[in-house]
Amino acid sequence: MSSFSSTTNTPTKNTTPTTPPFNLPTKHPVPSDIQISKDLTSLGLPPISSIASSLGLTPSEFIPWGPHKGKVTLSPLTRLSSTPHGNYVVVTGINPTPLGEGKSTTTIGLAQALGARLGKKCVACIRQPSQGPTFGVKGGAAGGGYSQVLPMEEFNLHLTGDIHAVGAANNLLAAALETRMYHEACQSDEALFRRIVGKNGFNRVMIRRLEKLGIEKRNPEEFTDEEKGRFARLDIDPSTITWNRVLDVCDRHLRSVSVGLGVNETVKNPAGGDRIQHDRTTGFDITVASEVMAVLGLTSDLTDMRERLGRMVVGYSKSGLTVTADDLGCGGAMTVLMKDAVMPTLMQTAERTPVMVHAGPFANIATGNSSVVADKIALKLVGEEGFVVTEAGFGADIGAEKFCDIKCRASGLKPKVAVIVATIRALKMHGGGPQVKAGVTLARVYTEEDVGLVRKGCSNLVRHIENMKKFGVQVVVAVNRFKTDTPLEIEEVVKIAESNGAYKAVMCNHWAEGGAGAEDLARAVVDAAKVVKEEDFKYLYDEGLTIKEKIDVICKEIYRAKEVTYTALALEQIATYETSGFEKFPICMAKTQYSFSCDPAAKGAPVDFEVKIREVRACAGAGFLFPIAGDIMTVPGLPTRPGFYDVDIDEDGEVVGLF
Amino acid sequence: MSSFSSTTNTPTKNTTPTTPPFNLPTKHPVPSDIQISKDLTSLGLPPISSIASSLGLTPSEFIPWGPHKGKVTLSPLTRLSSTPHGNYVVVTGINPTPLGEGKSTTTIGLAQALGARLGKKCVACIRQPSQGPTFGVKGGAAGGGYSQVLPMEEFNLHLTGDIHAVGAANNLLAAALETRMYHEACQSDEALFRRIVGKNGFNRVMIRRLEKLGIEKRNPEEFTDEEKGRFARLDIDPSTITWNRVLDVCDRHLRSVSVGLGVNETVKNPAGGDRIQHDRTTGFDITVASEVMAVLGLTSDLTDMRERLGRMVVGYSKSGLTVTADDLGCGGAMTVLMKDAVMPTLMQTAERTPVMVHAGPFANIATGNSSVVADKIALKLVGEEGFVVTEAGFGADIGAEKFCDIKCRASGLKPKVAVIVATIRALKMHGGGPQVKAGVTLARVYTEEDVGLVRKGCSNLVRHIENMKKFGVQVVVAVNRFKTDTPLEIEEVVKIAESNGAYKAVMCNHWAEGGAGAEDLARAVVDAAKVVKEEDFKYLYDEGLTIKEKIDVICKEIYRAKEVTYTALALEQIATYETSGFEKFPICMAKTQYSFSCDPAAKGAPVDFEVKIREVRACAGAGFLFPIAGDIMTVPGLPTRPGFYDVDIDEDGEVVGLF
Repeated sequence: MSSFSSTTNTPTKNTTPTTPPFNLPTKHPVPSDIQISKDLTSLGLPPISSIASSLGLTPSEFIPWGPHKGKVTLSPLTRLSSTPHGNYVVVTGINPTPLGEGKSTTTIGLAQALGARLGKKCVACIRQPSQGPTFGVKGGAAGGGYSQVLPMEEFNLHLTGDIHAVGAANNLLAAALETRMYHEACQSDEALFRRIVGKNGFNRVMIRRLEKLGIEKRNPEEFTDEEKGRFARLDIDPSTITWNRVLDVCDRHLRSVSVGLGVNETVKNPAGGDRIQHDRTTGFDITVASEVMAVLGLTSDLTDMRERLGRMVVGYSKSGLTVTADDLGCGGAMTVLMKDAVMPTLMQTAERTPVMVHAGPFANIATGNSSVVADKIALKLVGEEGFVVTEAGFGADIGAEKFCDIKCRASGLKPKVAVIVATIRALKMHGGGPQVKAGVTLARVYTEEDVGLVRKGCSNLVRHIENMKKFGVQVVVAVNRFKTDTPLEIEEVVKIAESNGAYKAVMCNHWAEGGAGAEDLARAVVDAAKVVKEEDFKYLYDEGLTIKEKIDVICKEIYRAKEVTYTALALEQIATYETSGFEKFPICMAKTQYSFSCDPAAKGAPVDFEVKIREVRACAGAGFLFPIAGDIMTVPGLPTRPGFYDVDIDEDGEVVGLF
Repeated sequence: MSSFSSTTNTPTKNTTPTTPPFNLPTKHPVPSDIQISKDLTSLGLPPISSIASSLGLTPSEFIPWGPHKGKVTLSPLTRLSSTPHGNYVVVTGINPTPLGEGKSTTTIGLAQALGARLGKKCVACIRQPSQGPTFGVKGGAAGGGYSQVLPMEEFNLHLTGDIHAVGAANNLLAAALETRMYHEACQSDEALFRRIVGKNGFNRVMIRRLEKLGIEKRNPEEFTDEEKGRFARLDIDPSTITWNRVLDVCDRHLRSVSVGLGVNETVKNPAGGDRIQHDRTTGFDITVASEVMAVLGLTSDLTDMRERLGRMVVGYSKSGLTVTADDLGCGGAMTVLMKDAVMPTLMQTAERTPVMVHAGPFANIATGNSSVVADKIALKLVGEEGFVVTEAGFGADIGAEKFCDIKCRASGLKPKVAVIVATIRALKMHGGGPQVKAGVTLARVYTEEDVGLVRKGCSNLVRHIENMKKFGVQVVVAVNRFKTDTPLEIEEVVKIAESNGAYKAVMCNHWAEGGAGAEDLARAVVDAAKVVKEEDFKYLYDEGLTIKEKIDVICKEIYRAKEVTYTALALEQIATYETSGFEKFPICMAKTQYSFSCDPAAKGAPVDFEVKIREVRACAGAGFLFPIAGDIMTVPGLPTRPGFYDVDIDEDGEVVGLF
């Protein structure tokens, strides 16, 4: 077992380096993440354009945004279309504590080990973090310690603006929807038709609506009154609206709001008398929960994104027709707002490994996975012998299942290895240890040796190993070491994991040591990838099953529920989707990440529980259905003492207090 | 008078070119703005880094964001602190029609003429446009025709993310405020104090609050109960809150909203019984109306911005104390969110003149001027013989008055020349022509010769000339030519302007011809700058006057009101400000742009009217007071057929339909 390093690590092998050799100067005790980021950046990071070129990107395929980050165009996908691609590795985890078990850190540490230590061509692919958690409780998401993306303050702030673009597109559609309802409440069919069509006749997006309605006429003069009304009046039933506004901030008071209370937002009362308020109760979500973000995660290119954004459903008309972004004239403008966002952002790790940061869909109502586009480009760039390490959010029951059944189904890519990250702390919690809570001192059991508790908690890990093997991938367990973990505790996990289906289980210490601390893990991943073929990969379910059958498979095969029940509302929604073209969509479960079951307190490997589907929603643009099991919160709150309290600039204008 | 050009313009003089000579290939009829942008971009724009270096920026002072735009650091301000600066020219206008009279286009055209035609070192400084109008009625704001900023689609979309940064900072503060009120409603002083101070004691931002409260203790253990409560309980009076959330979209239903309607946003009822909702009626503004944007427009550097953001007032405590961003622990985090936004963005015109795009404060409740920082850097870079052309929003009664009295007071810069843009169309409207409305065909009087109507309407122009001369600058009138204007009409304006104080009045045709069409204007500006000294510049009023005296001077000297009246609320607010340290602030009037008076229908040069001040608000961070005269709308609405309907990508993934 390796000990803490306070000296420079020397790479053990560097056959085909993707970047110049670099000896990571680690310090003990490990400084704060932002301090490490500053220290390493001030040593002189290689310009990001040199990282891009060593990765094989041509100058026209990389657009630098300052010295440390830049956009990768989608052209390598066509240029390298006939090149074989690399080994695809997904990093996932056991059900975590609220403190997180270091999946991002392991993703980065593993990539550093593969790249800087083993000399493999390697790219890490991760999500862009929301600013909500960054300034709230959780802090940044660039990894941590000596396994992080640099500079972490750029990673954690605006980056290249993708989340802002998602917000702008989402909110343009919300404004279009709300204002359209208002104009429809004020105007006759004739007036609406005349104003919308205007002098220039039907434009691109209007023709899409005409096609949807089956109206073949293209000369507005020839329209009957009925056709004018059908075209111009969307006649939205406000009770069916599922499109929320978004903000990338933890503002809990926006979860439920009433809009349209202004003196000018009134309409004529159809019953006569005073004008009535054109108000409505609705809500905001955090930006990363927008379907636009889910689309960004799953799209293949700009043209595909145009189609997906246009067919997003915001609600239904009173006669039951879908109302889409294109019906509101918005699909094109949203795509234009997202045209830079479709390109992944390239950064680098502490050991100069390339990192693609792209998309950040919320893991509880969307896929929780970074983008298809980034993984695809990266796999082409690393080539046949190379590795792409991508991260799936939440635990393997949610994030990795969605990775395989939704993301890989969309991309056609086949992973070979799943790395399951576990910590002694989380295993002890699953073994029956007391509650772990952010901001509260850990109970002593978590900092003192207790092999029995660890053993008991391994029930959680073992089930995740079994689950991932159902997808035909090799499983490597990474025990992410904390300094209070003892050799006996770690040995116990390794033994149990390896005797229960893991190809290998290894301790890693990349937080303190960088890639050197994940070298064993990297070797295990390289070896595991040799004993598996891409063709071994399989989805959990066939998309041709009925919606209820698909939900059933996930709940029983992955969560191990005894039964799945549905509210009347959910059944009604499923019945609608079965006949509206959404029946082939894969399922994106919205469920707690803290347990296999729907009860966050049920630790370990619960059985015999029920999954109650409260509601089922459709993301018609992203292309999945999301059944909601339990309470799902789409705007986190701020604590009494939020993280932003410490964030400031110092006397030299440098950022301090990001963590 | 020059005619339309359909051939290549050849520069007449090019003594000290800032960019390589370039012959602008103009077409007739003039294509759409986006078509021109595409045509000229596809001819091969010089990389923006070459524009930066020809401007004298060192490589470390310029951060490219892709090939066509980049950030200029603030270091030229120190590096060139002892270098003499250039000639400062402000472009303003008469009271416009709702269609706009081409101030931005004239700013860009004049810069093209000074740079590419007369060979002067020249920079244009303009605002970043809001996405609201871009997708609503107005369209883009990059100038137009052959006088525009390229590429216009980058200019009009996210640019380098500054507006998004303003939104993120604004909304972080809103969330902090709302959540703090909620936590204060749920927790005792002791609990609040314990949680806020935490284990690590008082941090930077908390010490600011201790200093404000006059508490000298720094050890939390020594705090009395009274001191704990005073520190931790802001005790905000909800009725005093002036801080709104923002979105950069025309979403009128957000003007007035009720927040906190969720099932979890409840607090214990102090009177016993069921929990009560923690809701509140509030509103959204468009992002550019945020005080954060006003701060960006007036700040001098990152450190100054930190102080300004921290002292922004969001409301008052029940005992009448100001509650600031720093009291909420937010000033530092907001600054960090704004750290890139403080740097101007460099782009180029159709004729390769450098353009700095920076800040875009709303002209009706803020200054409506681009940033102090950009103008300062540009003036240093062009040097003593060079020119900086900056634009002031709205008509000269608002935009240029604020430019002189607020922006120049903040920067210490002294303009030499004011260019007043007029059109025959707007002058005819002031002369009594029928109403001009967006989307409605112009009445015939606007497209046929009517010298008498033009003459009558010149009353508006003449008063703006008189007004600008009060500031000690030279006035040049630019008659922005439309193709229906006749030589006699233009001659009439030139004659009246020159016999009423203008140094010179010239016709210009830069929309159709680029810089060649503004060459006469450029010569007039160069000549005017020679006959004036910076020391001639003077403010309209002394900051030491009382608030009412300052308002009085503006209303009587500039608008020519007979009297100024105040509501009881306004008088009360003024009384508060007179004693709270805000009495020295300059005045930023919120008034219609369509008339000298508060009645948008009062055209020409109205007299004997009353200005009624409904309310007076303070922007303590930006550093001005804004008296509100009339209805001010801070979220525009969308029309039935908004601009976004036409925006899309074509088969090649290129943006179409932006105008």
